[in-house]
Amino acid sequence: MPPAKTDHAARRRDVSEAVWKVMASQGFGGLTLRAVAAQLGASTGLVTHYFPSKQALVAHALAILEERTEQRPRRVPPAEGIAALRTALLDILPLSAPDTVSNRIWVGSWDTALADPQLGADQAARDDRSRARLRRHVEAAQQRGELPADADPERLAVMALAFTHGLVVQALFSPALFPPERQQQLVDDFLAALRAQAVPGAGSAGQGPEMISPL
Amino acid sequence: MPPAKTDHAARRRDVSEAVWKVMASQGFGGLTLRAVAAQLGASTGLVTHYFPSKQALVAHALAILEERTEQRPRRVPPAEGIAALRTALLDILPLSAPDTVSNRIWVGSWDTALADPQLGADQAARDDRSRARLRRHVEAAQQRGELPADADPERLAVMALAFTHGLVVQALFSPALFPPERQQQLVDDFLAALRAQAVPGAGSAGQGPEMISPL
Repeated sequence: MPPAKTDHAARRRDVSEAVWKVMASQGFGGLTLRAVAAQLGASTGLVTHYFPSKQALVAHALAILEERTEQRPRRVPPAEGIAALRTALLDILPLSAPDTVSNRIWVGSWDTALADPQLGADQAARDDRSRARLRRHVEAAQQRGELPADADPERLAVMALAFTHGLVVQALFSPALFPPERQQQLVDDFLAALRAQAVPGAGSAGQGPEMISPL
Repeated sequence: MPPAKTDHAARRRDVSEAVWKVMASQGFGGLTLRAVAAQLGASTGLVTHYFPSKQALVAHALAILEERTEQRPRRVPPAEGIAALRTALLDILPLSAPDTVSNRIWVGSWDTALADPQLGADQAARDDRSRARLRRHVEAAQQRGELPADADPERLAVMALAFTHGLVVQALFSPALFPPERQQQLVDDFLAALRAQAVPGAGSAGQGPEMISPL
């Protein structure tokens, strides 16, 4: 039997917390009304009161995930430019226990999102926003002379998001290989590579990679 | 009623094909005995004959995925070095329809793998093998003077795998934004950045990124 609660808002928070815990431990594939009820110590009937269908449960799960991601504590944004780009990338990575849980759930949501046109479109739109945010930092860095001025900022934003998402996945599966300091070092290495990259026709940056070869 | 088949091997192939189609269309989260039976036009009882549990079904699904990935047609490996590294990265990307399906299923499997210690360890071991394979190409490229000789080859392999995995995810969700030629161009841009990166103390490559700034 669920504990008697008169506070509807508090009950909703409990339900959301139970959904979160099920996702964190069992993934999106394990997210069922029954699992949420078990986590909550309540009947499936009570959970059905909140989520009439599996789809409603998944929609709520993604809403919690989005909300927690928006509201998570972030690093104090530094001055604009490459330092801000670095901070934005670090903010994505699983550098703390709570960020690891969120990332685990985000990565887990891709399976469901790829199988559902609406959820897939939502994820594509989320990627669009991420690229646009990173691109603003790239453009500021270019204006400050911290990234090659002639490089396509959209391309650098795509590369930065790709690198960071892929690092998230490796770090989630091999946490011992990717402690926070190594993840940070890899971001710095990646940014150094972006800074150093040759851009055809971009003045001093235009020297081809062949010319920088140590041999 | 399932069609009568005397050929056990053929029946197994049909079952595997049905598992593959369910994964491709509904994701790992949609992979159930019932869904496979429906895809096969057979009874759930017949499917239970092959997979006594959900876990056995998932294990078989991952085995098919691994087998198809191993056996997929690959690009003819070019000479060693950075060209071979490039080919290895292109071989991961969703550049064709079948590779898109396989990638969709791989990405979808991460949710299940993150929730199961054994499957998670399997995925970590798979990443280990991918990094080791890329690292061999990196080392050959370094010996040929195509990548900075003083760079840590393991680090470059990690970066290359991260970049490629993350590009897979963006391309799966936004296929119209990432046609094959753009994915290939991004790989080339990434490799150019790796080649150009500054390596402290690596002779001519040792010039810091600050010195290459176009401003």
